Amino acid sequence: MTVPRYTPLAASLSATSPFVGPETQERATGKLFQARLGANENGFGPSPKALDVIQQAATEVWKYADPECHDLRHALAQNHKCDLHNISVGEGIDGLLGTLVRLLIGPGDVAVTSLGAYPTFNYHVAGCGGSLETVAYKDDCEDLLALIERAKSTGAKLIYFANPDNPMGSYLKGEHIVAALDHLPTGTLLILDEAYIECAPTDALCDIAFEDPRVIRMRTFSKAHGLAGLRIGYALGHPDLIAAFNKIRNHFGVNLLAQKAALAALQDPDWLAHIQRELKDARQFIYEVAQSNGLTALPSATNFVAIDCGRDEAFAKEVLEALIAQGVFVRMPFAAPQNRCIRVSCAPRVVLEKFASALPSALAQARRAHPV
Amino acid sequence: MTVPRYTPLAASLSATSPFVGPETQERATGKLFQARLGANENGFGPSPKALDVIQQAATEVWKYADPECHDLRHALAQNHKCDLHNISVGEGIDGLLGTLVRLLIGPGDVAVTSLGAYPTFNYHVAGCGGSLETVAYKDDCEDLLALIERAKSTGAKLIYFANPDNPMGSYLKGEHIVAALDHLPTGTLLILDEAYIECAPTDALCDIAFEDPRVIRMRTFSKAHGLAGLRIGYALGHPDLIAAFNKIRNHFGVNLLAQKAALAALQDPDWLAHIQRELKDARQFIYEVAQSNGLTALPSATNFVAIDCGRDEAFAKEVLEALIAQGVFVRMPFAAPQNRCIRVSCAPRVVLEKFASALPSALAQARRAHPV
Repeated sequence: MTVPRYTPLAASLSATSPFVGPETQERATGKLFQARLGANENGFGPSPKALDVIQQAATEVWKYADPECHDLRHALAQNHKCDLHNISVGEGIDGLLGTLVRLLIGPGDVAVTSLGAYPTFNYHVAGCGGSLETVAYKDDCEDLLALIERAKSTGAKLIYFANPDNPMGSYLKGEHIVAALDHLPTGTLLILDEAYIECAPTDALCDIAFEDPRVIRMRTFSKAHGLAGLRIGYALGHPDLIAAFNKIRNHFGVNLLAQKAALAALQDPDWLAHIQRELKDARQFIYEVAQSNGLTALPSATNFVAIDCGRDEAFAKEVLEALIAQGVFVRMPFAAPQNRCIRVSCAPRVVLEKFASALPSALAQARRAHPV
Repeated sequence: MTVPRYTPLAASLSATSPFVGPETQERATGKLFQARLGANENGFGPSPKALDVIQQAATEVWKYADPECHDLRHALAQNHKCDLHNISVGEGIDGLLGTLVRLLIGPGDVAVTSLGAYPTFNYHVAGCGGSLETVAYKDDCEDLLALIERAKSTGAKLIYFANPDNPMGSYLKGEHIVAALDHLPTGTLLILDEAYIECAPTDALCDIAFEDPRVIRMRTFSKAHGLAGLRIGYALGHPDLIAAFNKIRNHFGVNLLAQKAALAALQDPDWLAHIQRELKDARQFIYEVAQSNGLTALPSATNFVAIDCGRDEAFAKEVLEALIAQGVFVRMPFAAPQNRCIRVSCAPRVVLEKFASALPSALAQARRAHPV
């Protein structure tokens, strides 16, 4: 008998990470990135009011934060016109997905997602011994009806669906999501990941009752609100499901500065409107950079743009690596045919210009390496 | 079939929390606490250098933090004279315990702890379907040899042992822990929770090889380093076990300001020495307050003092509630016979004086409610 004795599940898993961080790449090359455009971060930054709160509250970090995240949940409930009991705050959507998956998925249970969608969901399903079913994108959009069909045929407990979608930036109108719910099999919970919803046209919003037990929504302060480094997001759903998070979540896990900064960000709608304008301009700039390089940018409802490099994975990867070698951090989709693209985050113009400067030679390098 | 379909384990659990936060009590009474002495926080605060770093790094919170926590792990490895691969950084010891328990404990697996020891460990064991075996304290100390005996007789996979101990403040010399390891059954992992080690006499330190597969140590920045609200701690152990954390941990879960502030705190040994002197003075003050009220303070190797109220749980609870009614937040041990005590955190003198002022009338009230 050796020590430690892992569970059979833990023994079967490999050490892995859903993403390699840009810092790991920087350490490997010994050079810092000049443009950080790979992780859909918000380089425009958070509300100055959130920054003020962080500075003011720094001296309070000796205190544990409120495990109920009451003040933030209270403000969120007002914003969403729902009840406190419809909201669980967690350590970003990553943390919330981890808790939710643990509540539903045990060895052999099925979860359905799109091939090439958010890998952290897949990581959590694997970590609970679940079986993952993947459905192809359709015209660069997640195919909700096909996801639902697959859930029916496999008896899935969970469907993961992001609206808008990452990594393609596409979106489905909220009314179509609502209509699709009629087809959900009984016993399947739809995770509606709305991480990018504040970046999207308003018709992406869903009119789903908070008491509807078939859906749980995930929101974050990491994207439009610019607080990725603080790790805070929330789930919106039926009170029984929200209460179930309290069975296993790390109750004191959401840090004090995150709770305070998120509240301040929420209370600054003018800054959010400013960010939405900046994102619109940044998307337009990326579209134009793509076009002027003979590439096609996909229309984006998010804070990033997928650029179709017009060839295959190997070609896109060559472009990506040539950009990285020039100090421009970007990422690309994981699965075909989306991986013909590279994915570029919105950012202030001065940062995007580094991408614009680097792209022509990156493309030239890729064309040399992969002649038609 | 209803939705969602929880795992049998999740369905069997109750929504609960290892601790009620003081904010919950404040909301219930509508009054803010005047003295926050219940959660073993460090009211002396973190290093001013850590505060500077928080203020400077606030504008960087739009970035995700390094999922490898490389810079902090590098500094910790230097401090502990070990390798990067001996260290996993997590969202406080709470988060690390959660991950570790999930790696080892499945339904029916046994974990051993002391009756009335840290409830968050028990919460995680329950959350994984484990079976908890509890061993009585002996003379207000955790009884390591009895814990080991119980692990032998029950085939336990895990033993939880805190040195120094919470909630009593006692400690075992490091050499006795090392000697006890010889008795550990093969296949039992000892969790050595050293959350309070920086508050303790130096002979509490253990000389255990980092490569020893029988032990995993937990450390935190929440106590002596005063960063509880930021949620950051680390595990020290065998590289294989440390690598196993990467199978299921929330890779991006440790926030950016926590990583930076912890590094700054680690690099300010003068502040730690200052805190250690403050803690010594504060413990002495609490001892004297106890004595002048006819009570016995237990000698403490931590940043809190357990005060024996000299009677039973009901009496101590009355004292506690009378203190809380006067705006003084304290807690008490959960299990007999330790729950004859109240537990008071070290804090700046002005805060402790609020406790000192409130204690006589709290005792008088308890004596009226529970006449001998």
